Amino acid sequence: MSSTNSFAANLVCPKCKKEYALHEVHQLCACGSPLLVSYDLKEAKKHFHKESLRDRESSLWRYKELLPVQDEANIVSLGEGFTPIIPLKRAGEKSKIQNLYLKDEGIIPTGTFKARGAAVGVSRAKELGVKVLAMPTNGNAGAAWSVYSARAGLKATIIMPEDAPSITRNECAAAGADLYLVKGLISDCGKIVARSVQEHGWYDASTLKEPYRIEGKKTMGLEIAEQFDWKLPDVILYPTGGGVGIIGIYKALNELKELGFIEGKLPRLVAVQAEGCAPIVKAFQEGKKESEFFADSKTVAFGINVPKALGDFLVLEALYQTGGCAKAVSDAEILEGLKELSQTEGTFVCPEGAAIYAAAKKLREENWIKEGERVVLLNTGAGIKYPDTLSIEVPYLDKDAVL
Amino acid sequence: MSSTNSFAANLVCPKCKKEYALHEVHQLCACGSPLLVSYDLKEAKKHFHKESLRDRESSLWRYKELLPVQDEANIVSLGEGFTPIIPLKRAGEKSKIQNLYLKDEGIIPTGTFKARGAAVGVSRAKELGVKVLAMPTNGNAGAAWSVYSARAGLKATIIMPEDAPSITRNECAAAGADLYLVKGLISDCGKIVARSVQEHGWYDASTLKEPYRIEGKKTMGLEIAEQFDWKLPDVILYPTGGGVGIIGIYKALNELKELGFIEGKLPRLVAVQAEGCAPIVKAFQEGKKESEFFADSKTVAFGINVPKALGDFLVLEALYQTGGCAKAVSDAEILEGLKELSQTEGTFVCPEGAAIYAAAKKLREENWIKEGERVVLLNTGAGIKYPDTLSIEVPYLDKDAVL
Repeated sequence: MSSTNSFAANLVCPKCKKEYALHEVHQLCACGSPLLVSYDLKEAKKHFHKESLRDRESSLWRYKELLPVQDEANIVSLGEGFTPIIPLKRAGEKSKIQNLYLKDEGIIPTGTFKARGAAVGVSRAKELGVKVLAMPTNGNAGAAWSVYSARAGLKATIIMPEDAPSITRNECAAAGADLYLVKGLISDCGKIVARSVQEHGWYDASTLKEPYRIEGKKTMGLEIAEQFDWKLPDVILYPTGGGVGIIGIYKALNELKELGFIEGKLPRLVAVQAEGCAPIVKAFQEGKKESEFFADSKTVAFGINVPKALGDFLVLEALYQTGGCAKAVSDAEILEGLKELSQTEGTFVCPEGAAIYAAAKKLREENWIKEGERVVLLNTGAGIKYPDTLSIEVPYLDKDAVL
Repeated sequence: MSSTNSFAANLVCPKCKKEYALHEVHQLCACGSPLLVSYDLKEAKKHFHKESLRDRESSLWRYKELLPVQDEANIVSLGEGFTPIIPLKRAGEKSKIQNLYLKDEGIIPTGTFKARGAAVGVSRAKELGVKVLAMPTNGNAGAAWSVYSARAGLKATIIMPEDAPSITRNECAAAGADLYLVKGLISDCGKIVARSVQEHGWYDASTLKEPYRIEGKKTMGLEIAEQFDWKLPDVILYPTGGGVGIIGIYKALNELKELGFIEGKLPRLVAVQAEGCAPIVKAFQEGKKESEFFADSKTVAFGINVPKALGDFLVLEALYQTGGCAKAVSDAEILEGLKELSQTEGTFVCPEGAAIYAAAKKLREENWIKEGERVVLLNTGAGIKYPDTLSIEVPYLDKDAVL
């Protein structure tokens, strides 16, 4: 074995504080809560420094000390992570946010941030001896777990609603996953997965039902800190469905603080949702610790159509603790934001990415975002995965035409 | 002005050797040949070293000394380049190429290598004061030039065949380009562009009709050299349509050699084409210096359906000078390669990328690739941009199903 020098220590339940051993397969805590990976940061502080990162590869595996994989041989990588942070100067002028940045998770294998969770999740599944995993998906997570499973030599069973983006079907199928469609919602797919996992003893890779996906998502927070040279921005906006990304970013920043890599106040984290599916926004407005099921949810931003997230209490904690907020935008605002970003900056983002731009504009208008603050939009995926979001009409020319 | 420290000196015609000033707008040479950017490498050798690269950003702009942009303020970037090189262990075992690697150009803005040419090409167009550019495209180049033009504040006029990948239409339209479709081939689009450019005095951004796109593509060669720690692989396979990439890689390696960054023999460059459109392969087999128009061309790999490339003589020179070759594969081999790569490695490549894997297997069978040689496949784009290449059928499950 070639050690990664990981400082992962064990698994801990954030609700009942029960601990579990790292070398065993665990899904949810006995109390029903997701489990989180805990690190020995006191020990890490002695051996892992900012300077350790200097000559490392430009992927999320540069942070191996803060990831759960133990043996280098188990790392399943397609070169994911260390995505660029792009200054949005002209969109910043339009929105009066002078220091506006986009972290672009479209530039990653499979074209969405789901690759991070899959890379780390599949690597750990492989390390734990898993042979078959199963999951429900709104499309992109299934695609990511399919391709990483193929690379790892694991069997993936993926169940998605028939309305999920069609490109993601092809990704799953091309990678040789067992793919099924359901005329229903992701929650219907989830129930089939739950029954099948129990029947066959498969590994349940559903959102937050295994503890490692969040560790992959966490690297977005590590990267933002490093890419801003450890001087954190004031606000980070994140499109929130299951919320794993925002939980991960919050976890990352706390770990970096304990390590002494960063100081002072954390950025205010903002959970952005669509008006048609805004359970976290509602809970935040009511000052609650958990959300309620958001009935009849509907939005053009399919990836954040999650009526009730298993980790809602962790998302809300991250908002409260950082002085952040939750904000909803309409589908019309999302589509307008998508066009405005493309045309002013060339960044063709996914609808979820457009939602956070729209939310940032509103928060600036309300002066919740103050003049001169540094604001990061976390775009979770490439617009090319959602070719039908914008309807376009293109004129034809005759072969002998001159413009 | 904040200088990039570029060592670009002037423009030179590779056919008649006529020179042109760098600060003027030039398209083709008076003799009809494409122009190439020439660098003062003697001077560069004094100031630019391998160590200069150590702490630079992980994008193609790390090589500013060897790029043509003069002023930092003119760089138009979306974070492109420094794409990963992924070891293909299991596909290597299947194909008996033990040291097989994939450089994955799917992980780049717009999802294809065209982003490199557009980033550098648009940056230079901006630097030269261009306001409007026009080009014909088989889709991906148009998408890339549209989004970079949007970011630069330039007006882009894009003309593509109606059969071009539909996602690329949306990219152009979202970025606000003037987009037109033609019931015909890219050559028909090219004629409309030529007439319109002459009519309006627009900048002609057609392949090799401006000298800077190739400089962007060149960075693939620079990166391969650096990522292999300046110990070059034995063979590089490249899917060849217009051939700008292979010309660029060859140019990059020669510049690095003159700089003293690399030593010894260059990698053997392989131009891979589809049997349905193989003008370079035919010319290579006949030992010719130029190709002939390949009539009635047709292939599933749309990006390499180019019946006659303006830079064919430069491609062939690169093959002859490096002891490389040209190889054609069938559409059936392309589709099989696509599946095999996805299922063994998780790399969902574009059809052109699948073509080079198929070609590598054949060249290994013929022992043209020798045992133990290090082989790099240059995958030019993400499979997600070609969702209809593989036809799939997905079974449905009832909501109360158990697998």
